Amino acid sequence: MQGNIMARPLLISGLIEHATLTHPDSEIVSRRCEGDIHRYTMKEAAQRSKKLANALSRLGAKQDDRIATLAWNNHRHFELYFGVSGMGAILHTINPRLFPEQLVYIINHAEDRWLFVDLTFIPLLEAIKDQISNIEGFVIMTDEAHMPETSLTNVLCYETLIQDESDEFEWPEFDENQAASLCYTSGTTGNPKGVLYTHRSTVIHAQAEIAKEALDIGSYSCMLPVVPMFHVNAWGTPYAAAMTGAKLVLPGPGMDGASLWELIETEKPDLLLGVPTVWLMLLNHMESIGKKLDSVNNVVVGGSAAPLSMIKKFQEDHGAFLVHAWGMTEMSPLGTANAKTRLMDSMSLEERYQLQLKQGRPVCGIEMKIVDDSNNEMPRDGVAYGRLLVRGPWVISSYFKNDDQSSFIDGWFDTGDVATIDPHNYLGIVDRSKDVIKSGGEWISSIDLENEAIGHPELIECCVIGVAHEKWDERPLLLAIRKEGSNVTAEEIKDYLSDKIAKWWMPDDVVFVASLPHTATGKLLKIEVRKKYHDYLLKAENA
Amino acid sequence: MQGNIMARPLLISGLIEHATLTHPDSEIVSRRCEGDIHRYTMKEAAQRSKKLANALSRLGAKQDDRIATLAWNNHRHFELYFGVSGMGAILHTINPRLFPEQLVYIINHAEDRWLFVDLTFIPLLEAIKDQISNIEGFVIMTDEAHMPETSLTNVLCYETLIQDESDEFEWPEFDENQAASLCYTSGTTGNPKGVLYTHRSTVIHAQAEIAKEALDIGSYSCMLPVVPMFHVNAWGTPYAAAMTGAKLVLPGPGMDGASLWELIETEKPDLLLGVPTVWLMLLNHMESIGKKLDSVNNVVVGGSAAPLSMIKKFQEDHGAFLVHAWGMTEMSPLGTANAKTRLMDSMSLEERYQLQLKQGRPVCGIEMKIVDDSNNEMPRDGVAYGRLLVRGPWVISSYFKNDDQSSFIDGWFDTGDVATIDPHNYLGIVDRSKDVIKSGGEWISSIDLENEAIGHPELIECCVIGVAHEKWDERPLLLAIRKEGSNVTAEEIKDYLSDKIAKWWMPDDVVFVASLPHTATGKLLKIEVRKKYHDYLLKAENA
Repeated sequence: MQGNIMARPLLISGLIEHATLTHPDSEIVSRRCEGDIHRYTMKEAAQRSKKLANALSRLGAKQDDRIATLAWNNHRHFELYFGVSGMGAILHTINPRLFPEQLVYIINHAEDRWLFVDLTFIPLLEAIKDQISNIEGFVIMTDEAHMPETSLTNVLCYETLIQDESDEFEWPEFDENQAASLCYTSGTTGNPKGVLYTHRSTVIHAQAEIAKEALDIGSYSCMLPVVPMFHVNAWGTPYAAAMTGAKLVLPGPGMDGASLWELIETEKPDLLLGVPTVWLMLLNHMESIGKKLDSVNNVVVGGSAAPLSMIKKFQEDHGAFLVHAWGMTEMSPLGTANAKTRLMDSMSLEERYQLQLKQGRPVCGIEMKIVDDSNNEMPRDGVAYGRLLVRGPWVISSYFKNDDQSSFIDGWFDTGDVATIDPHNYLGIVDRSKDVIKSGGEWISSIDLENEAIGHPELIECCVIGVAHEKWDERPLLLAIRKEGSNVTAEEIKDYLSDKIAKWWMPDDVVFVASLPHTATGKLLKIEVRKKYHDYLLKAENA
Repeated sequence: MQGNIMARPLLISGLIEHATLTHPDSEIVSRRCEGDIHRYTMKEAAQRSKKLANALSRLGAKQDDRIATLAWNNHRHFELYFGVSGMGAILHTINPRLFPEQLVYIINHAEDRWLFVDLTFIPLLEAIKDQISNIEGFVIMTDEAHMPETSLTNVLCYETLIQDESDEFEWPEFDENQAASLCYTSGTTGNPKGVLYTHRSTVIHAQAEIAKEALDIGSYSCMLPVVPMFHVNAWGTPYAAAMTGAKLVLPGPGMDGASLWELIETEKPDLLLGVPTVWLMLLNHMESIGKKLDSVNNVVVGGSAAPLSMIKKFQEDHGAFLVHAWGMTEMSPLGTANAKTRLMDSMSLEERYQLQLKQGRPVCGIEMKIVDDSNNEMPRDGVAYGRLLVRGPWVISSYFKNDDQSSFIDGWFDTGDVATIDPHNYLGIVDRSKDVIKSGGEWISSIDLENEAIGHPELIECCVIGVAHEKWDERPLLLAIRKEGSNVTAEEIKDYLSDKIAKWWMPDDVVFVASLPHTATGKLLKIEVRKKYHDYLLKAENA
């Protein structure tokens, strides 16, 4: 029997309408590509989203059309988030750090019709313009005064495009499962894969994300998402801002320590969101100029694991709590968050730091389990390793235009991570499943080994892979880049590790290299390293 | 085009599963009918919910079956919330304050199969047992030691029913629009009407409710919902507790000031939820024993409007912020909440109190508008009065087994309230639309007049109604109950009002009465007063 409740769809337009009526004066502050700081209110942003929707309609954009962006975190990108999805079209946010051939691939695969581009990224498009002929026109996200010379054709100016449009627009109503936005992963193998979010998934994700147990966002908040709006919708922060009326500070192209510090000093955010690399730059900059954070309560770290030193530095030097979060493009992205708890309050700082190193507990709505090679569930004891499977109303069920269902198991998504889950449902990411080393039936975490090895003062980057071994199937091999001038030996590194890891985890050899290969987004490309060194131990033994 | 997201249903079982895994140690403390305080953890509650689901299955309960409760806020009622809805049956929470003939009506109308009853309410059932023959059995919510003598037949003991059941139960998956719970309104006219909530509406409502802009609930919270679990699911607090891991303090039958204070002193809640009458009793009790609240941050008040004196008393004597909320059984119930804002921080206390008197801003998900008699939208200027219409994913689209669609207008629900909406989307409830007085084309709020009149020190209750008038259609008539021994006159009351209200609002007469009629839930039954006095002014003029 069905209940008697209105069948109201959960739509992104509902968020911006709520914001317009309820939080009209909330501020959105952006560093623009043009160089200055732009500030306006939520109500103005909403009105300009409607002008944009009218302009897109005039251009002929229809429901389902893909409208792409190559843009920083700024106010015009915010308007695109609501204007494009709100009218029923699909916002495709492109990661400008992809290689040119990947850009070509995804623009064609997505069948983008228009592309909105920040001044910074015009050269990227000029270089590939002949290979993306499906694009009907480029809209340069600036005003007439800043329009550049370009070899692109069918070029419009954003401000001119919208200026004469009405700021009234009746957002259409449609099924909440309508696609709203599209984001491609930059995988380490093959072509990027598209993740097509729905209005429903976006709204439910935002609602879950603002909860205290997740990112703790409300109208009092002032958020600085350094995580890019081209990367999983800046972790949903634009939607969360509309939902709550939080102030939004958008750093534009200024992701370096000095630019971020300038914004922090003037706008006083209490919530920062980004990857560890960004915070390392910020912490170094603040140290160099002798400044401390005083407005910041929480720093949300995702993308890769936060090191202990960073958790401590934020806490002890800046009084800021580091909220370790974990998610994936395939998860909108939020899976878990390690928010402060009552239990932590009663712990010593050292105990608390150890807990903070974990990726946190699932946000309400996300289910997770770890399984063995036969997909049997493994215990939540904090010790057992297993492949991490997740499901929930903002997790994908397939990739965009892709029949491959190999990542989907009985309705669960295989994250490709190996993890532990403890009795309080804290997730600990151990390794990527393709990187974990299977030695004599036991698993060794390549990440744990790398983290220990990088502690050696003469190493600047480490990569641990499993290589073929006649007796144990696989054994760990450590590749390392030495500091300039260092002559540290393999034996010295192994000595250094000997009291830090289990004996059977000891890498069989240490190879010093001049460089290591990386993906477009800076992750180690272990697949290439493995290819090169696969037979390393076999050869050594045969030699 | 649909996105590629898992079709995961939003189910109540998902909340309790999340709680079991993520917040197993959260406390639930109850005052039991048996007289003592009971405490256990969320994990134990979840296990007992599963035992209950197994027991119900053994009794033959199936999806869609209505399982009724007549119970206070306590741990067994909590288990029923999750066990019954979780297994796909429908939890019908009965208001024991209804008149016997209304109890008979709703038990039969709902077609309840089993009825779970607290010790307190057994006599209510014994009195009507011959008229509710559809009930297959009664489960008394106690243990064997406390089982009473009763004339009810087919009686089971709750603890005995569940004790041998397994605490493993696979919650079934079904459509999120499946009915989850049923609650009847105690209207002032006709039979009570049923509101049938869905799993989807319950989960989305809980998620919206915990937001900072709404009731601000997280794992740090300790909630004391005095609002009954038989009244719109205690405003959703049991679901919110499972979602967040908040500690839940359930007052059982102890709704008086002394019992509440005892719980507050020992359990230290930071969030209280209830109707003004309850807080009046608590405030009086604390005053009489010279105690202050020290753990409480927020007091959520709904059901009827909080008077200014209460807002001030909580703030100035107890350091607690009164969150004025507004909702309806038909809205799950939360519509608006008047949470603290940054703007309030910059106001004088007097300005802030004036704003706190409003019912607050819509929770994200609820849309509202005011309309005139032709259903044209009226301005959001804080001045214009109109009929309040709402819509949203937790608002009803019809009453249970009821074809009457007169409250539904173009997909909006007509709340039956007359209200203002200001430019920041704050709602001000002016009157019930059937009570507002239409005098010469202008509207007069009967509630505003009552609130002013009750300020006179010699009156103890007031009722203002519109009565027929030859020239103005309707004019206000004030009926009042004097304090014992008072001889205050109609002229003296009018003098008192003369500088407090607009001249044309002045009641045409003041009639002193010995008593006024009320509904089962304590609301003035103005319909009866109007019937009696409809021609009062016509007769007076004719006389």
